[in-house]
Amino acid sequence: MNENKIRNIVIRAIQEDIWTGDITTDCVVKEDKEAIGKIIFKEEGVLAGLPVARMVFKEIDSDLKFNALIEEGETINADRVVAKVAGRTKSILKGERVALNFLQRLSGIATQTKRYVDGVEEFDVKIVDTRKTTPNLRILEKYAVRKGGGNNHRMGLYDVILIKDNHIRSAGGIKEAIQRTKDQYATMIEVEVETIEDVNRALDAGADIIMLDNMDIPSMKKAVNLISERAKIEASGGITLKNIKEVASTGVDVISVGALTHQISSLDISLDLAQE
Amino acid sequence: MNENKIRNIVIRAIQEDIWTGDITTDCVVKEDKEAIGKIIFKEEGVLAGLPVARMVFKEIDSDLKFNALIEEGETINADRVVAKVAGRTKSILKGERVALNFLQRLSGIATQTKRYVDGVEEFDVKIVDTRKTTPNLRILEKYAVRKGGGNNHRMGLYDVILIKDNHIRSAGGIKEAIQRTKDQYATMIEVEVETIEDVNRALDAGADIIMLDNMDIPSMKKAVNLISERAKIEASGGITLKNIKEVASTGVDVISVGALTHQISSLDISLDLAQE
Amino acid sequence: MNENKIRNIVIRAIQEDIWTGDITTDCVVKEDKEAIGKIIFKEEGVLAGLPVARMVFKEIDSDLKFNALIEEGETINADRVVAKVAGRTKSILKGERVALNFLQRLSGIATQTKRYVDGVEEFDVKIVDTRKTTPNLRILEKYAVRKGGGNNHRMGLYDVILIKDNHIRSAGGIKEAIQRTKDQYATMIEVEVETIEDVNRALDAGADIIMLDNMDIPSMKKAVNLISERAKIEASGGITLKNIKEVASTGVDVISVGALTHQISSLDISLDLAQE
Amino acid sequence: MNENKIRNIVIRAIQEDIWTGDITTDCVVKEDKEAIGKIIFKEEGVLAGLPVARMVFKEIDSDLKFNALIEEGETINADRVVAKVAGRTKSILKGERVALNFLQRLSGIATQTKRYVDGVEEFDVKIVDTRKTTPNLRILEKYAVRKGGGNNHRMGLYDVILIKDNHIRSAGGIKEAIQRTKDQYATMIEVEVETIEDVNRALDAGADIIMLDNMDIPSMKKAVNLISERAKIEASGGITLKNIKEVASTGVDVISVGALTHQISSLDISLDLAQE
Amino acid sequence: MNENKIRNIVIRAIQEDIWTGDITTDCVVKEDKEAIGKIIFKEEGVLAGLPVARMVFKEIDSDLKFNALIEEGETINADRVVAKVAGRTKSILKGERVALNFLQRLSGIATQTKRYVDGVEEFDVKIVDTRKTTPNLRILEKYAVRKGGGNNHRMGLYDVILIKDNHIRSAGGIKEAIQRTKDQYATMIEVEVETIEDVNRALDAGADIIMLDNMDIPSMKKAVNLISERAKIEASGGITLKNIKEVASTGVDVISVGALTHQISSLDISLDLAQE
Amino acid sequence: MNENKIRNIVIRAIQEDIWTGDITTDCVVKEDKEAIGKIIFKEEGVLAGLPVARMVFKEIDSDLKFNALIEEGETINADRVVAKVAGRTKSILKGERVALNFLQRLSGIATQTKRYVDGVEEFDVKIVDTRKTTPNLRILEKYAVRKGGGNNHRMGLYDVILIKDNHIRSAGGIKEAIQRTKDQYATMIEVEVETIEDVNRALDAGADIIMLDNMDIPSMKKAVNLISERAKIEASGGITLKNIKEVASTGVDVISVGALTHQISSLDISLDLAQE
Repeated sequence: MNENKIRNIVIRAIQEDIWTGDITTDCVVKEDKEAIGKIIFKEEGVLAGLPVARMVFKEIDSDLKFNALIEEGETINADRVVAKVAGRTKSILKGERVALNFLQRLSGIATQTKRYVDGVEEFDVKIVDTRKTTPNLRILEKYAVRKGGGNNHRMGLYDVILIKDNHIRSAGGIKEAIQRTKDQYATMIEVEVETIEDVNRALDAGADIIMLDNMDIPSMKKAVNLISERAKIEASGGITLKNIKEVASTGVDVISVGALTHQISSLDISLDLAQE
Repeated sequence: MNENKIRNIVIRAIQEDIWTGDITTDCVVKEDKEAIGKIIFKEEGVLAGLPVARMVFKEIDSDLKFNALIEEGETINADRVVAKVAGRTKSILKGERVALNFLQRLSGIATQTKRYVDGVEEFDVKIVDTRKTTPNLRILEKYAVRKGGGNNHRMGLYDVILIKDNHIRSAGGIKEAIQRTKDQYATMIEVEVETIEDVNRALDAGADIIMLDNMDIPSMKKAVNLISERAKIEASGGITLKNIKEVASTGVDVISVGALTHQISSLDISLDLAQE
Repeated sequence: MNENKIRNIVIRAIQEDIWTGDITTDCVVKEDKEAIGKIIFKEEGVLAGLPVARMVFKEIDSDLKFNALIEEGETINADRVVAKVAGRTKSILKGERVALNFLQRLSGIATQTKRYVDGVEEFDVKIVDTRKTTPNLRILEKYAVRKGGGNNHRMGLYDVILIKDNHIRSAGGIKEAIQRTKDQYATMIEVEVETIEDVNRALDAGADIIMLDNMDIPSMKKAVNLISERAKIEASGGITLKNIKEVASTGVDVISVGALTHQISSLDISLDLAQE
Repeated sequence: MNENKIRNIVIRAIQEDIWTGDITTDCVVKEDKEAIGKIIFKEEGVLAGLPVARMVFKEIDSDLKFNALIEEGETINADRVVAKVAGRTKSILKGERVALNFLQRLSGIATQTKRYVDGVEEFDVKIVDTRKTTPNLRILEKYAVRKGGGNNHRMGLYDVILIKDNHIRSAGGIKEAIQRTKDQYATMIEVEVETIEDVNRALDAGADIIMLDNMDIPSMKKAVNLISERAKIEASGGITLKNIKEVASTGVDVISVGALTHQISSLDISLDLAQE
Repeated sequence: MNENKIRNIVIRAIQEDIWTGDITTDCVVKEDKEAIGKIIFKEEGVLAGLPVARMVFKEIDSDLKFNALIEEGETINADRVVAKVAGRTKSILKGERVALNFLQRLSGIATQTKRYVDGVEEFDVKIVDTRKTTPNLRILEKYAVRKGGGNNHRMGLYDVILIKDNHIRSAGGIKEAIQRTKDQYATMIEVEVETIEDVNRALDAGADIIMLDNMDIPSMKKAVNLISERAKIEASGGITLKNIKEVASTGVDVISVGALTHQISSLDISLDLAQE
Repeated sequence: MNENKIRNIVIRAIQEDIWTGDITTDCVVKEDKEAIGKIIFKEEGVLAGLPVARMVFKEIDSDLKFNALIEEGETINADRVVAKVAGRTKSILKGERVALNFLQRLSGIATQTKRYVDGVEEFDVKIVDTRKTTPNLRILEKYAVRKGGGNNHRMGLYDVILIKDNHIRSAGGIKEAIQRTKDQYATMIEVEVETIEDVNRALDAGADIIMLDNMDIPSMKKAVNLISERAKIEASGGITLKNIKEVASTGVDVISVGALTHQISSLDISLDLAQE
């Protein structure tokens, strides 16, 4: 991860919450009061986001001491302390909500991802995310997917050629679409297909990765046999915790799941303050 | 809402996804192709976010025509078209994912809020949100809460004095905490209390709003009677769709619910493209 | 105050003055020269802005040592040294003008505010500022008001409901205007009135604060009696050092004075350099 | 003036005031209400800043019509309308305070400058400003000086070599200081001097402009005679409306006056709204 | 290309040149003067950058009319007019230098690229650029490479896995390095090799693209035979117009040339102004 | 130079290259690996840009140690180590390309400038640059010119009055153009002339610097004699290493050369990594 980029996200989040000042804390809490805050998991889940929480507190007050007690990506039981932050009470109170908002969302994503990854652990298949992320938090949400044991699909429209149905229709066919990209880029090409006929067209045109979009299990199996080693195979669309094992059993290389970032609950995490 | 502020969020989200360019679309789709995209609700829910979706498309290509067919805040059946966007196919494809990511999240929040509001419609009580929002999207998420029929609590630490337990402990008591804010601000003061004793202390010190934090129903009733017209009363903590009616029945003025923005699923909304 | 926000103001001010470089100092002063600068009040006044001056010097050169000798908000005699800055001569010269520009303006505001506050010290009334501040310096100017013993009215249009005459006319009456805000916000409402009839309307509609705008003293007294404990009372408009005591004697709770930030002279403060 | 640069100042000022939204106007004023606002001088003064006021309104709502009725730089009688703004009532109300804050300050500066310029109209001398400007508004304040009939001294540390006493002391003498700048820049050099001896040293070293700092009138006359055509001559320090004519009479080419931007009162200007 | 991203580059370039204002033009040229500027190639070359030049003029004055007379990527003879810009003389003069600075550099790159592409036209090989671009202009320089007939290698460190010698040494071998990336990403892997042994290791570990770094021609031929269809092949390092045909004849798929952006001369292009 | 301004350029350049992360290095290189990188000149040239390279590495990882072994502006032989950077291997690899891109370009400019300066060393004349710089790198490129022994002409349109032919035509003559600037600014005026008649007009109108644009050598000599001490003299246009000595021999004070920044090759400089 690029720390400077994440710092910008963190600074904006702090500005959003504090803006011209934390008027309550500035009135009520004396400058020299000190405290220790414990960040506690209130329910079981996978930890992701402590480096972001640390950044929040350090941006607010570089004198705060932040101790991460657990490694990112570990599964944590309820009531466990995952980190401590010590220093000025004012500074801890100012950062509390923003730090937790990041941590709860990212740990929620990691926890969700872990469930999908665990569901296919007997297969040689990778679980990847999609572009269905929260606007302006993608870099962090994709980080959380990795901490949950998943892998990342493309970061955005700029880093991978992925020819979808609308592109194909607009170009007049799979062959034409692939040819146009080959004219301009010397890189890997992924194509989305919905039928076995399209699988053949994609193979003929030289696709490097073929994404089977919303196929039923028998078609998927047929496609996997047909493609064999000639291209990588990704399954996508309508994949849930219920059907993921069956999808994995078809032999696809990669399964992309929008729900990793799109249908998650923030984990219940709190900060308890012991004033000194 | 401040349009300039939202435009900044939208521009950053577009940059996040497109960065140096949509390499697939730029290769495959010809400059002069045109199409019409229909934005369709795939499940029932409350609409929120079309002005943001419009901004996404307009930022990418100011020639795109965007027609909102439904008013923000309406409840929509599945399969209904809520807006159309027409113009260059390239531009529609570039904006699709970002526009939907905003729309799905905001409509998810409005839909969730509507459930809480409907749950207490027989009472004269307001449902309000909290600061448990997605970092850097608070202004939009609070907008979605309003569209779902809810009201907004404070925007951040800067606009309302809200004295919480940690502030009280740090100041050495409710009375001291309130006094310190009165020395510096000529504005309304809200205080969080957990016991009836604290309610009395808050009243004596001149609190304008008293927040009953995680109180059981009998205590809440006692507090409401005690406070009467001397302050506004807010219930907070552990409030769900199951218990909200009972909470409302105690006579509190306001109920704050973190789950409005913190435990939501993005609504299933898609963009269907008809190429011309 | 939010330090990050103020740092942005400071950085922009430095860039405004230095831009591509201080060409004189870079040519003339050797890299390793050191000096001590003394910041001196050339006339009596209230000190405000040393933390901003410190930030200016630290941003330019983090090795500079800045010692504040006096507490913010103290009244200083002419010729008194209020702070010292030591380190590279080049760095001190580069920051001198920007640091003084901030310090002179903020101390000017604090000094002005102190005069108004002293004028009403026998009354239980608060002097507050307005939104008539220098564009992009409001957070600092409101800070200076506090250091002069004043209090702050709202920071901007976003943090307090204040219904003024144009709002009332547009809504069709005080009652309608207040009702519309109550439909959307669960917060305190302030209403501006010009006549005793309007005071009654505002009370009936449930205003929390009533601002008496440009009322003469007898009307003000009548309004104060009428409102009594039913709402807070603010006097506003045409208040000067000459009439403020009479206004305070009517029993209003708050007096807002645009001149605190709008009609001030920068205080005469200089930096004397002793080269080593 | 660079319009883009000023637009940035304007946008920040709007954000400062509106931030997440004008909550009063958004609640109370209906979307389709229209009005005409008249900007009125409440006291006599020189007009400066209408293009900035226009920008404020246009940034908030590009549909607003803004008509300037008077040319920048004209002297206006009290009660005269200088501009009209027409369109959505909401938009006019949102921009009112920010537009006036700019206009009042800039017209105050132009009015002040005009007094100094008028004071020396019988002489062939230019009145110029200094770097004692409000942080982050320098470009606008220097514009207002020009509209008041003054000229601009340097914009910042980056565009003119001006060797002051601290530079000279640090370099070990006027000659050394000038020589060091000549080694690096092929541009005009201005030097600040306090004595006749220093005038001679500056002339010998090849200064292009000599600034007579805080000299008494007899010394100034002597310096002017001595320098004659060999360099331009600037008088600076302690110059007020009382003594400026005497200073001009010494024959200096330029008089710099910090008070143009440093000791000014905002002019009394208001916006009257006629709702339709 | 992402227009918003390029607009940011253009705006910064304008600010860099104009900053507080074009003082000469603002003094000398009257507001209502109009003119037509012709952009003329003074030497033969490939055109690239007109859309950027247009953006410069439109940013400065949206009323300027800009007519591109030639398509990007065409080879232009000396003395040919490639575009006209018409409107306010002031605006044309303000944008002239910045527009030309972009256009001259980008056309220089396109012209240089064309020479390399022409040199291998008989072969089925692609000429690609590197990351040796001017800081903060990469998106534009890579665009110019495409207009000259070249293709783009990766945009930055973020969009393609490219394992270089230092990575391999740090990981302890090609196999280990490839394995680590496969654990985290489901994407294409490129590996840099210097010897035939390394080619074998890369093939065994499953590299998708093999970059032959600074190999002599016989080794390159051997490597091409060895790899055959098992991976794409890129030649890199020390490639000039003199040896590029020989490199292409080895049968590699792609040749990367740092000199496309790193050793170029700006093309001689001028703007001639006909005042009206 | 203004360090903050340069830091912004550096940060943008790093973001351009790394964006969401260096995916190769993050996968392959272990967090705790350390190395030493040597920055080596592969060809002879003048060093410029080490402080920028240092900033690149420090921005990426403030723990990296950067040791400059040579002074800026020195001429370096091929194969000489000019600096070392030590610390985390990951951090060195992430910064390598960006640091070199700056260093190679700036040293290329310094080397080029040195050739021109050396070509006229027997004359009392200054070599200065122009505004033909790379967009958004001007401050750095002008720094490199100084390190090569050159001097800087104006930074942009904002800091020097330079009346060119188009200005003169638009104003209706040299006299009118100069008069208009004198009405508004109390600063030095430079005028571009092409004929001896224009030289006379410029002198009469009071120009401070006269730029002889594209004059042949005999005309230049005539102009120099005519102007004598009445103004500074600059030669400009079509000046190359071949004719610069002859131009200098005419007695002009300053020669401006666009090629210093416009026709340069990046110097060949590399970073060699010794892993520990």
